[in-house]
Amino acid sequence: MTIVLGDNQYGKAETHVVRITKTGSGGKTHEIKDLNVSVALMGDFTASHVSGDNSNIVPTDTQKNTVFAFAREPGVGEIEDFAVQLARHFVGEFPSVSRARVSIEEYPWSRITVDGKPHPHAFVRGGAEKRLATVTCTGAATWVVSGLSDLVVLKSTGSEFSGYPKDRFTTLEETRDRVLATSLSARWRHAGSEVDWAESFAETRRVLLETFAVKHSLAIQQSLYAMGEAVLKSQPELAEIRLTMPNRHHFAVDLSPFGLSNDNEVFYASDRPYGLIEGTVTRDDAPEAGFAW
Amino acid sequence: MTIVLGDNQYGKAETHVVRITKTGSGGKTHEIKDLNVSVALMGDFTASHVSGDNSNIVPTDTQKNTVFAFAREPGVGEIEDFAVQLARHFVGEFPSVSRARVSIEEYPWSRITVDGKPHPHAFVRGGAEKRLATVTCTGAATWVVSGLSDLVVLKSTGSEFSGYPKDRFTTLEETRDRVLATSLSARWRHAGSEVDWAESFAETRRVLLETFAVKHSLAIQQSLYAMGEAVLKSQPELAEIRLTMPNRHHFAVDLSPFGLSNDNEVFYASDRPYGLIEGTVTRDDAPEAGFAW
Amino acid sequence: MTIVLGDNQYGKAETHVVRITKTGSGGKTHEIKDLNVSVALMGDFTASHVSGDNSNIVPTDTQKNTVFAFAREPGVGEIEDFAVQLARHFVGEFPSVSRARVSIEEYPWSRITVDGKPHPHAFVRGGAEKRLATVTCTGAATWVVSGLSDLVVLKSTGSEFSGYPKDRFTTLEETRDRVLATSLSARWRHAGSEVDWAESFAETRRVLLETFAVKHSLAIQQSLYAMGEAVLKSQPELAEIRLTMPNRHHFAVDLSPFGLSNDNEVFYASDRPYGLIEGTVTRDDAPEAGFAW
Amino acid sequence: MTIVLGDNQYGKAETHVVRITKTGSGGKTHEIKDLNVSVALMGDFTASHVSGDNSNIVPTDTQKNTVFAFAREPGVGEIEDFAVQLARHFVGEFPSVSRARVSIEEYPWSRITVDGKPHPHAFVRGGAEKRLATVTCTGAATWVVSGLSDLVVLKSTGSEFSGYPKDRFTTLEETRDRVLATSLSARWRHAGSEVDWAESFAETRRVLLETFAVKHSLAIQQSLYAMGEAVLKSQPELAEIRLTMPNRHHFAVDLSPFGLSNDNEVFYASDRPYGLIEGTVTRDDAPEAGFAW
Repeated sequence: MTIVLGDNQYGKAETHVVRITKTGSGGKTHEIKDLNVSVALMGDFTASHVSGDNSNIVPTDTQKNTVFAFAREPGVGEIEDFAVQLARHFVGEFPSVSRARVSIEEYPWSRITVDGKPHPHAFVRGGAEKRLATVTCTGAATWVVSGLSDLVVLKSTGSEFSGYPKDRFTTLEETRDRVLATSLSARWRHAGSEVDWAESFAETRRVLLETFAVKHSLAIQQSLYAMGEAVLKSQPELAEIRLTMPNRHHFAVDLSPFGLSNDNEVFYASDRPYGLIEGTVTRDDAPEAGFAW
Repeated sequence: MTIVLGDNQYGKAETHVVRITKTGSGGKTHEIKDLNVSVALMGDFTASHVSGDNSNIVPTDTQKNTVFAFAREPGVGEIEDFAVQLARHFVGEFPSVSRARVSIEEYPWSRITVDGKPHPHAFVRGGAEKRLATVTCTGAATWVVSGLSDLVVLKSTGSEFSGYPKDRFTTLEETRDRVLATSLSARWRHAGSEVDWAESFAETRRVLLETFAVKHSLAIQQSLYAMGEAVLKSQPELAEIRLTMPNRHHFAVDLSPFGLSNDNEVFYASDRPYGLIEGTVTRDDAPEAGFAW
Repeated sequence: MTIVLGDNQYGKAETHVVRITKTGSGGKTHEIKDLNVSVALMGDFTASHVSGDNSNIVPTDTQKNTVFAFAREPGVGEIEDFAVQLARHFVGEFPSVSRARVSIEEYPWSRITVDGKPHPHAFVRGGAEKRLATVTCTGAATWVVSGLSDLVVLKSTGSEFSGYPKDRFTTLEETRDRVLATSLSARWRHAGSEVDWAESFAETRRVLLETFAVKHSLAIQQSLYAMGEAVLKSQPELAEIRLTMPNRHHFAVDLSPFGLSNDNEVFYASDRPYGLIEGTVTRDDAPEAGFAW
Repeated sequence: MTIVLGDNQYGKAETHVVRITKTGSGGKTHEIKDLNVSVALMGDFTASHVSGDNSNIVPTDTQKNTVFAFAREPGVGEIEDFAVQLARHFVGEFPSVSRARVSIEEYPWSRITVDGKPHPHAFVRGGAEKRLATVTCTGAATWVVSGLSDLVVLKSTGSEFSGYPKDRFTTLEETRDRVLATSLSARWRHAGSEVDWAESFAETRRVLLETFAVKHSLAIQQSLYAMGEAVLKSQPELAEIRLTMPNRHHFAVDLSPFGLSNDNEVFYASDRPYGLIEGTVTRDDAPEAGFAW
């Protein structure tokens, strides 16, 4: 029996970089990009593990510097492009690095409105929702996954749950009308890397929201599948989509002890435990995922 | 020397209640109110502390039930009104309770847009920002404090910091151009309780945002004061406003080792430590704050 | 009507400093102090607020530097002493600063045991509990408050709750046996500043824990008061103690639908809502609190 | 092209159950187990996704009930055993469930000491560290992974980092002496399921801590590998171990502007960004991991 090193990776996580781009006459109009960038490198790092020989170890501090430098030049555009540039750099620059993954969270900002007009350099954070990109590169291939997280949505009707198996431990009553709420995380894999990322993101997000809203739900699984299916039908550039939908339970409060009815009007929003529904929707002819995930 | 009970209070914190109100033809259009309600009671509770005699202790469980019942009937309107009703109930119903405080956080939701129109019963969370109300009642008086928290704003220029004293431990360089960012918390005390709460909140928030944007800042203190002053000038119903502005430092990254300039374009967003600027702006003829805070 | 500046303060929050002190033969034995230090200054800062004149504003960056420098020399001893030195420095060094408050959280570490012996320079974090000190200085006076937070304790029996008033909204059943759990925060004010801080802290913490354990509880209020009273009886150096005890509800699960009994054996630990019990225990001849809190 | 359902699973996450077991004469001595239990089921759930037919969907509410019922009878022993019983139940009870995974976090408690003796029913939480178990069952096989998380450790010397490649973006200076700190997460896969879980956990944890302490570190990777190797050498029941070691950077503060030296005595503990080092150590003859992870 021999003890050996298995899969391993390392990198700098959560470099929080804000890029201001000055445009317009005299550079008076500013654009903002607010990113949290994480790098992970895979490759030939056995010597560092076994004997502390770091000749193949690109310091995570250097990775951080590279993120800042690339934010300056060539600059941050869509996060998928920025991640591609960074990932290719690490694979191309360092022979010991066979694979690089760059994961980015983008925090949304919008302009503050002053006298009915958007201000050129004052901004307000747009919410907890994040836009995501994860790009993985080898020397030969590139995989791009886009996504979003912390998109909290709720339907106050149009959701049922019934017809499930009962056993000794079942106490849940079937319902024809309930609140359905979730904090959606979704990540979708692109079939290629020549994509209008901004357009693809906006459309995918729009379809997710609309389908959540209009699909009458007999199960969260059904909503999840419908959302994924609608996205793939709408976006031919996508190979698959993975959705995570925690069930943020809203329990109708029993108000009968107080002589009050409650026709799904007053709910207790529970934190834990919660249902957690996860699923993938894909095309049967999707290209292999490779190292995308 | 005798050991005695000093100030004390208790209550149910963080009852998370969601109220759906059904309006329109056939009740098909739903409104949502999403509240986190905390109750604190003050009064004659010495016996419980000293001997475990609970004859004056309204159970926190009852307080929670009351929140749910009141959410049903009379229902939740503006959070200031809801808090007033609850606080008056506890003071009026229980002789042992001399003072009640109800604090509410409201989470914003907006309708999901489907085919360009707002959906009648599907919603998306509007961000991390919260609207706040704290109402304190005695048998004779009511104080209303409104507010907001987690309103994250940033100016990418129009902010300076210079002219400060230097000592042995000073290394900070003066700057004529920096990023100014904060997660604003503000709470404002109303002079009375006959107020159009929704209008007052919307206007106060608007003035805070606009003033943050347009005021050229020589110090966060100056921005804070200008924001408070503008609010009081705009809103005659307000007696005072308290603002908390953590300085979310954005440090321009030194890119010169990489042969790159950085004219306030690439920033490292730091978590800790952070400056914390707090101040009150008031009218010199404001009514006494009493138990408002 | 004139708009004026009211109470205000500012400072650097959450400077996270770790101090290693090397002792023993050849400095081979290391001691660790892990502190989160927050400074707040009060004084004559009107000019900065009103006109952006910062000639009285000690930069928060300088405050941070001072924390690091003082950690080196004179070094960190007990956190109360460290806070006193820092607070006095700010008041003494800057005429515009009339009052300084230094608040410290200390994170506990213990040595890793190797072959049954404590290692000289390897440590493991001791838990979520924090030791606290808040020192407030004017030119003439010093107030010291010590404390702890996040001390999570639980009694699986020896706790009751009954005899409370019932109204229309009461559904809670009286109980003669329940779990009592809380995440204790306590802060105690010293009558003077010549104290063996380490000994005082250790004894106060011990008395809090022992009293929580042995006091049969008819109400959380009763436990709270008993704990405070026991501390004051034990520690003559203390003027008062303030305790915050959120009721971490543990609800016995109804297992009868499954044909199982549950004699307080299986509990659901709930997150929200929670009871929140707060109280002060003091001496009737305690010196004035002044600016201590 | 056809759109199809891919991998999917669902279950109840974070059922927070506390089990009190009464032992000793008259049941006066209590034991406490404090668990956060998450269930995930995999199987034939296509109908629910595609058409909302829930005849194969065991409600997550039932899963929660089952956790509580099993906590009562047969009761909670070691978390690996509890997870095996639950996972086998779901696979055995429901033909549609082909695979079940039960993940448990255990929060540590110790007895409060009163008059030098452990109290029979009063407890104090032992820290942020968690003990972990993840058990995956099919009808035919069982995989057991144990672990721990949030074990925060620090070495104040005995750590170096040098010999790494330099490029255009490298500014880090080599060091022969630095602080090494991490919040360790480790999970180890058992070769079988007949194990003294408590003993195995205690020994693995001990070896991890001791190796972290005594191994002179030329790279975090080297510490990681040494820790994994030592565990596998010590514990023949283990097939592999996966370690995650975020580098909690402690930067020596430059005190020279203040005329002070800093021979690794004063550090700034940084939150973000952080290095993230992840690796697996395994036996070359380890049984296949199957569905263990």
